[in-house]
Amino acid sequence: MLEHFFSPKAVAVVGASREEGKVGHDLFKNLVKFGYKDNVYPINPHADYILGIKAYASLKEVPCKIDLAVIVVPSLYVIKVVDECIAKGIDSIIVISAGFKESGIDGAVREKELHQKIKQHSIRMLGPNCLGLIDTQSDLNASFAADMPAQGNIAFFSQSGALCTSILDWAVNECIGFSKFISMGNKTDIDEVDLIKVMNEDPHTKVVLGYLEGVKNGSAFIDTSQNLTKNKPMIVVKSGGTMAGAKASSSHTGALAGAENAFDAAFKQSGILRAKTIEELFDYARIFSHQNLPKGPNIALITNAGGPGIIAADAVERSRLKMASFCKNTIDFLRSSLPAMANVYDPIDILGDAKAARYKLVIEKVLEDPNVDAVLIILTPQAMTEIEKTAEVISEISNRTSKTMATSFMGGKRIERSLKIMCQRKVPNYPFPERAVSAIEAMYKYALWQKKPIPEINKINVQKERVLSIFEKIKQTGHHHMDEKDAKEAISIYGFRIPKSILATSEAEAVKVAEEIGYPVVLKISSPDILHKSDFGGVVIGVKNEAEVRRHFCDITQKAQRLMLDAEIKGVLVQQMIAGGKEIILGMSRDPQFGPLIMFGLGGIYVEVLKDVSFRIAPIGKEEAEEMIREIRSFPLLKGARGEKPVDTNAIVDNILMLSQMATDFPEIVEMDINPLIVFPEGNGTIALDARLTLVSRE
Amino acid sequence: MLEHFFSPKAVAVVGASREEGKVGHDLFKNLVKFGYKDNVYPINPHADYILGIKAYASLKEVPCKIDLAVIVVPSLYVIKVVDECIAKGIDSIIVISAGFKESGIDGAVREKELHQKIKQHSIRMLGPNCLGLIDTQSDLNASFAADMPAQGNIAFFSQSGALCTSILDWAVNECIGFSKFISMGNKTDIDEVDLIKVMNEDPHTKVVLGYLEGVKNGSAFIDTSQNLTKNKPMIVVKSGGTMAGAKASSSHTGALAGAENAFDAAFKQSGILRAKTIEELFDYARIFSHQNLPKGPNIALITNAGGPGIIAADAVERSRLKMASFCKNTIDFLRSSLPAMANVYDPIDILGDAKAARYKLVIEKVLEDPNVDAVLIILTPQAMTEIEKTAEVISEISNRTSKTMATSFMGGKRIERSLKIMCQRKVPNYPFPERAVSAIEAMYKYALWQKKPIPEINKINVQKERVLSIFEKIKQTGHHHMDEKDAKEAISIYGFRIPKSILATSEAEAVKVAEEIGYPVVLKISSPDILHKSDFGGVVIGVKNEAEVRRHFCDITQKAQRLMLDAEIKGVLVQQMIAGGKEIILGMSRDPQFGPLIMFGLGGIYVEVLKDVSFRIAPIGKEEAEEMIREIRSFPLLKGARGEKPVDTNAIVDNILMLSQMATDFPEIVEMDINPLIVFPEGNGTIALDARLTLVSRE
Repeated sequence: MLEHFFSPKAVAVVGASREEGKVGHDLFKNLVKFGYKDNVYPINPHADYILGIKAYASLKEVPCKIDLAVIVVPSLYVIKVVDECIAKGIDSIIVISAGFKESGIDGAVREKELHQKIKQHSIRMLGPNCLGLIDTQSDLNASFAADMPAQGNIAFFSQSGALCTSILDWAVNECIGFSKFISMGNKTDIDEVDLIKVMNEDPHTKVVLGYLEGVKNGSAFIDTSQNLTKNKPMIVVKSGGTMAGAKASSSHTGALAGAENAFDAAFKQSGILRAKTIEELFDYARIFSHQNLPKGPNIALITNAGGPGIIAADAVERSRLKMASFCKNTIDFLRSSLPAMANVYDPIDILGDAKAARYKLVIEKVLEDPNVDAVLIILTPQAMTEIEKTAEVISEISNRTSKTMATSFMGGKRIERSLKIMCQRKVPNYPFPERAVSAIEAMYKYALWQKKPIPEINKINVQKERVLSIFEKIKQTGHHHMDEKDAKEAISIYGFRIPKSILATSEAEAVKVAEEIGYPVVLKISSPDILHKSDFGGVVIGVKNEAEVRRHFCDITQKAQRLMLDAEIKGVLVQQMIAGGKEIILGMSRDPQFGPLIMFGLGGIYVEVLKDVSFRIAPIGKEEAEEMIREIRSFPLLKGARGEKPVDTNAIVDNILMLSQMATDFPEIVEMDINPLIVFPEGNGTIALDARLTLVSRE
Repeated sequence: MLEHFFSPKAVAVVGASREEGKVGHDLFKNLVKFGYKDNVYPINPHADYILGIKAYASLKEVPCKIDLAVIVVPSLYVIKVVDECIAKGIDSIIVISAGFKESGIDGAVREKELHQKIKQHSIRMLGPNCLGLIDTQSDLNASFAADMPAQGNIAFFSQSGALCTSILDWAVNECIGFSKFISMGNKTDIDEVDLIKVMNEDPHTKVVLGYLEGVKNGSAFIDTSQNLTKNKPMIVVKSGGTMAGAKASSSHTGALAGAENAFDAAFKQSGILRAKTIEELFDYARIFSHQNLPKGPNIALITNAGGPGIIAADAVERSRLKMASFCKNTIDFLRSSLPAMANVYDPIDILGDAKAARYKLVIEKVLEDPNVDAVLIILTPQAMTEIEKTAEVISEISNRTSKTMATSFMGGKRIERSLKIMCQRKVPNYPFPERAVSAIEAMYKYALWQKKPIPEINKINVQKERVLSIFEKIKQTGHHHMDEKDAKEAISIYGFRIPKSILATSEAEAVKVAEEIGYPVVLKISSPDILHKSDFGGVVIGVKNEAEVRRHFCDITQKAQRLMLDAEIKGVLVQQMIAGGKEIILGMSRDPQFGPLIMFGLGGIYVEVLKDVSFRIAPIGKEEAEEMIREIRSFPLLKGARGEKPVDTNAIVDNILMLSQMATDFPEIVEMDINPLIVFPEGNGTIALDARLTLVSRE
């Protein structure tokens, strides 16, 4: 896949330059300097030789086949060069040049034209407006970066070119090596999804890192990421999140959704570890690159100083890791080998006078303990501390154990040399123990994800066409908000239970159907133009007899007319009154990047005030639906707080799956709220008291 | 204050040693090496000279007055040396020696003896079991640390000696200087409160840092910290938090309180910035030490790379800072001076080819903008970037502006020299922009705190002695849980409104008082032995008539007897039935370190399930009480969500102040719950439906 990008047999640089400091020069120099010599062709009509390599006036003059063309000419001439690529039969190009959609309207037009052209001729393109790419396995540096990273097992893709330069520079000091390093630029053709596929198949890549500001194709992103994370970890920083406010919306779900929740859900569902900061990205990268995954959550802390041990233990308590409970054998050994004042329980305090030999003794013993999955070693440079020797000891042990190891040597000048020793020997060190704990926790979380089965999406058998015909009917009226009756009918086809409910167009009819349904009943205004029925008194509950039906019928319809003079009033919905149960809300909002975002929460204030809701992107598997329910803070209320019976969570799971399928089946649904959805005690199911559904507007 | 510790005229080191590697040697060497030569006296019966300085066999042989004795003899001999100090008239000692309470029972006994002795003779003592102290102003290094820090304006006190060694080592590389540096050890005499007082008065100290695992005297800690933070910032890492689980408790407040909440409240009330990690402690220290406080929240970001700019803007959005809105004048200038593709709004993207001159132009202009309070400058090392020159430019500007400046130069090897330039010239650099934003936010928060008036504690006029006599009555019975009736009477004396309520000891009496109060009424079992009345059906609400009173009276008393055969049943409380309002809870739990911890929250599930509560330590001022109310997540429910009227928050404030005073007036109250406390709409006050109060147990 994309082989011509990562191990081309011959590369042409269109716009290669003799002038130092120019991108066309720096890039060509990188190619030549790091491995491409005989098979690299500078294209420049004004030069005979560049860096001692014969230059050609145009692509067509190159006497052999070219796998990859790197284009660094000004944006106005790029199309012309692409035409030459086509003529030459080149199928892979990197456009370094800026001056496309990032630069305004003219650039956007150029980019569109460029995109059409390459699509037409089945050319794959990286960029435009990018730094290029590096593949350390094939010695390919087709970038104008100032550094060539060391060979390693980390692949990195970035939506920011400038960030790439910082990271390459940073990697030099941190003994971090890369397999592939790719600046995506404007992602006009090749995007994160293509690259994730490549990295998944790359045997030299153990860890994938990414920096994203958005994704082009949400569902493909989830699928390919999920495939990859079952094989290897992927850690991503997503920025630009809080900038985009929640869009204006008529539904609760829409108001609460927003791009950030969609990204969080997508990352959860595809097993991507989301780093909160660039620092965290590389804190995680170091340990994933160098260490084995822990088999469980049990961490042993070994320290020569009490305070930092407590700090680390605090961090463990706040994490999903657990402080290890050592076997008796371990404790006995520690007690007999360490000075009397040492603490032999986790965190093990081996005291300020601990030399390298004492560290060694304890680390080795603790690693043998079956109740230990990971070890964090803390060192403060005290008077008797053998700093470098301890680093050597740790490195040596780390290279032969299969358990996860990390260190936190705390200090500055005096520990510099020891850090170099451990860095070279693949022991990840963190300047503060909290960061080490967080990195080990990330590994543990990933280990759990790897064990988790990929969710099965089971299709429910439904009469889709019946829903379709309801939608068609609505569309013909020109409305895009559905009225309650139609919305409830639609969801009932997907399996939602709804109360008996009949539309009455007159007082007399209302009385008749109320008697049919049985008192008490609920009366609700029915109008596709009125969305928030209760706000103006358009809903009356507990209507007990004929007189009350007559009175409220008049009252409701008059209020509605006063509220909105030109509202189309279909009548009054007479509905079976449902008692008991707990109010929950299910909803859907279509995210522009990821599609149908499903929301779950407790009804009323929990949604409106506390915003205590969970999200997943449809289609959703059963386990994911269960997670959604468990994830909200108010979950204990559903389990039965204060002596109540637990509610029917199985029924909620079913409902979530129905909604998920409905949202997937009908891309024309923009937003839905099923609110309130009443859930009864275990075994008694749910019933949807109200539903709201918005279809794609025709404008 | 404690002058003899920080600028002694003459220092003796008892246990000074000629042998390198021994603490008695290292410490003496530090004293001599860094400034004390003619006025330092080694005490060692086996040496004539140590490091060329005449040694004495004992303190009494020293021919002049000694201000400070540093004791490094084994713990067994410390008392004897203290006796010699007394004989010599020495009033200040540092005990470096370990082997006291940290080492077990014998050590604890020794420590107690030591404490008694020094108290008796009005000697002040630092330690035992500490690293010693350093004062860079007086050139005093009375520690066995391996480094002498540079002179600077940061004072540091630590409960962990080992952490001190790490921090001194770290400071060397970070251009961080200290005024005072103190290892507190076991804090037997001198503790954080003494040191905070010293640091407050020290003109050379601009910033105070601390590492604490606990405090000795909570209320003194709050008072002295509050005094200090009105003058200068104090940043503290508190560890050991999550380890101590919440103690078992019979009240809601007690169950939710716990040491962590007490510390959080104490830090909030005393204006201490709590750093989550040691890394954060020093991230904050650097900027507080070198830069001015921002006058407002508006931050301008200037970057040569889009991605990091977005990352920083995200961090700003998540913080209490605001992205700056530049004046038209600034925008016009930027637009006319920068290349067309630059972004002239915050974050300002000055593009990848920005040289030092462009940085200078933009920084200077932005600093002139009155809508800018702080500037963060981001640099990624791109091909054309003038890294060191830009660092020079920034340093120069930073030294002449009064606005807050910080940088985030992102990279490794290539930016090393630039970091040194800025470090020396007091520009705080952060390797990642998120950390810079967090540090500037900390400064802004502190600036807000400084402006806030110190809370006034207004005493309410109450008949304390009436409450006292209720407590006396209870104590005589041997109970320590008060029954509801007594508890409510006690709080009503402090101004809480309570419903009419009369104890009935027979069915007939119950009917009589119910008629007096007026139907419907509430019936509640009255027994000092039964705390959770509703759990077994001991409370019946909405009792409408005589027949119901009779029936429930029997039922309740029988159930109670069955529940607890030997419970003392006083009868049934007949209470006025209160309708409407919202349930809230007020409570108090006495924290072992800080005393009365006051809790506020919404009643029912908000407390029990969501744990949505706020804490402060009594006595509380009016503003703090208001903050407590605003702080809970469910506050919008009190303001009037979903079209409801806002509740009477003024009345809640009054209630919190009453509870605060009651808790302060009566140290014998261990725990209280006023739950439910009903709050009515604005202007209609509150009423306490139930109260529970526990006094100090006699055991």
